[in-house]
Amino acid sequence: MFSCVGFAAEDPTKPLLPYTFARRDPGPDDVAIEILYCGVCHSDLHTARSEWPGTLYPCVPGHEIVGRVFAVGSGVTRFKVGDLAAVGCLVDSCRSCPSCRQGLEQYCETGFVGTYNGLDKVLGGHTFGGYSSHIVVTETFVLRVPDNLDPAAAAPLLCAGITTYSPLRRWKAGPGMKVGVVGLGGLGHMAVKLAHAMGAHVTLITTSPSKIADGARLGADHGVLSSDPAAMKAQASSFDLIVDTVAAPHDINLYLGLLKRDATLVQVGAPDKPLPVNVFSLIMSRRNFAGSLIGGIAETQEMLDFCGAHGITADIELIAIQDIEQAYARMLKSDVKYRFVIDMASLTAARAA
Amino acid sequence: MFSCVGFAAEDPTKPLLPYTFARRDPGPDDVAIEILYCGVCHSDLHTARSEWPGTLYPCVPGHEIVGRVFAVGSGVTRFKVGDLAAVGCLVDSCRSCPSCRQGLEQYCETGFVGTYNGLDKVLGGHTFGGYSSHIVVTETFVLRVPDNLDPAAAAPLLCAGITTYSPLRRWKAGPGMKVGVVGLGGLGHMAVKLAHAMGAHVTLITTSPSKIADGARLGADHGVLSSDPAAMKAQASSFDLIVDTVAAPHDINLYLGLLKRDATLVQVGAPDKPLPVNVFSLIMSRRNFAGSLIGGIAETQEMLDFCGAHGITADIELIAIQDIEQAYARMLKSDVKYRFVIDMASLTAARAA
Repeated sequence: MFSCVGFAAEDPTKPLLPYTFARRDPGPDDVAIEILYCGVCHSDLHTARSEWPGTLYPCVPGHEIVGRVFAVGSGVTRFKVGDLAAVGCLVDSCRSCPSCRQGLEQYCETGFVGTYNGLDKVLGGHTFGGYSSHIVVTETFVLRVPDNLDPAAAAPLLCAGITTYSPLRRWKAGPGMKVGVVGLGGLGHMAVKLAHAMGAHVTLITTSPSKIADGARLGADHGVLSSDPAAMKAQASSFDLIVDTVAAPHDINLYLGLLKRDATLVQVGAPDKPLPVNVFSLIMSRRNFAGSLIGGIAETQEMLDFCGAHGITADIELIAIQDIEQAYARMLKSDVKYRFVIDMASLTAARAA
Repeated sequence: MFSCVGFAAEDPTKPLLPYTFARRDPGPDDVAIEILYCGVCHSDLHTARSEWPGTLYPCVPGHEIVGRVFAVGSGVTRFKVGDLAAVGCLVDSCRSCPSCRQGLEQYCETGFVGTYNGLDKVLGGHTFGGYSSHIVVTETFVLRVPDNLDPAAAAPLLCAGITTYSPLRRWKAGPGMKVGVVGLGGLGHMAVKLAHAMGAHVTLITTSPSKIADGARLGADHGVLSSDPAAMKAQASSFDLIVDTVAAPHDINLYLGLLKRDATLVQVGAPDKPLPVNVFSLIMSRRNFAGSLIGGIAETQEMLDFCGAHGITADIELIAIQDIEQAYARMLKSDVKYRFVIDMASLTAARAA
């Protein structure tokens, strides 16, 4: 065991504050990582504030982790001290159920071990995430980061990237496909970049006129304001695939009506209230409404390699960990382009201000 | 033009009453059919009473038609006078859009011509359905009925049969697949018979304890009461495909939770109010919620041939057309096992009672 520093919420009503806790010493299969950067995901806030059920306190959030390997177990073959390494939303799973055997650990049938708020198989208690100085993870769940990517801007690939990459791949985004992306936030801006890099025709569908130009800059071929009925009508029944990244309750039927026959709308943002679905819209064109959850380890590595090959990272705003509560406040106003990333040097550095 | 008799609703508030109207003389490509039997579909009632938008009056419902060919045009090659023939929900479509070219006329991109309440391309005005003595339909949209099937009990195959057959085929029901059927009415009882004949393991999911035994008789391997939380929990995440035939508003999330990862729930009953969908349930197991509409002409013929090969027809209650309003009243109470079929001889026969 060794001592680690991080930021934790003590209960749902408290701000995140400095917190010291123990990590396990690396076992034979473990990779020990000094965390350099950690992205700030909306899930962090939902969990820290118990907006989702089941938060275990103290809660150290963070699952978009990039760092430097500082120790490896004797059985580790793919990493050595000094390597850049990444950890996403999962740090373990049962590794034996059909989903795990198919490389779909995110759908582990006994439940994967989350990077934070999971059940720690080794130490007992619960897992602590990436808003911290170090993390120790079994090699199987550690990813390689392509050297050509800025490590800070690569951090959000571990959740926002894979969450959008996985459905784009599963529903075969590529040349000749018309792909819609609903919402231009952390997930949406990655979906636009990735679908564009896959060769699809990309349309950004947004409620914000100010985001149309930004969508184009990120790779969208077209932008549609969902509040403009004529513009929406012009797009009716024209999409092969829509990735809906909006986590707030919204009228999903507006977007279902944009799908071609047999096409799919995949929800990756997770509204906490049920969305009313117009069943006629599904029936009349045999449309599909689906969901998708992050991605498995193999696909996450594939996504990182794809991003390396295409020079793709997130658009980020680097912050000190002491500013996390301000970042959350701005995130709640969608005032971030497009992902906050914590510079973990701030954890230990004396601050100027 | 020749004169036809039928039963029509004059407006949404009136019962169906005798009605005389003109059919076109058969053109070169037309098949003229003396109607022997017509199934009674819930859509007939929805349309006659303007419960769905857009009913054109007078309304002669009926789209589960079996009859005898009494005349054919000079260009007709597949039918001759005296043949048994059937007509389903469609009597024409554009025949040139991508959907039509793929044999998916039910998704015709300019809108198919419904057997009733459609726009009559030849005579103008609107189409009149199978609650009538005769019908004239272009050969392409006329189906062959296998000789070994009881023609009265075959009539419901034209809507209830194809509506359930098509999604079972599309989502590959067959040996090794666990298929759920929600609801045991006109559609549900066909779904059970067809999925069983396709070799799938079939589970009937119903709110009615009395229907469990009937489901078994029709071919279900298992029955689950949806009102029994323990029984439902035991089925969680276990189905490869669920066909939901319930047209009334209902809690779809109960059934979505029964799907395995990547599995699909297909709605074929059409609730007129949006169904609230728990998006987490879709996301956490990459589940799909889809819809499906009847079937194309080629697939309808395939279904009839399949039913011929397996000796499958609907369970029916034969009625006189004068009893249609009573039949509607009983249908609204789900008091029918499992489809009313009108014996069209009643149209002209003197009635005993």
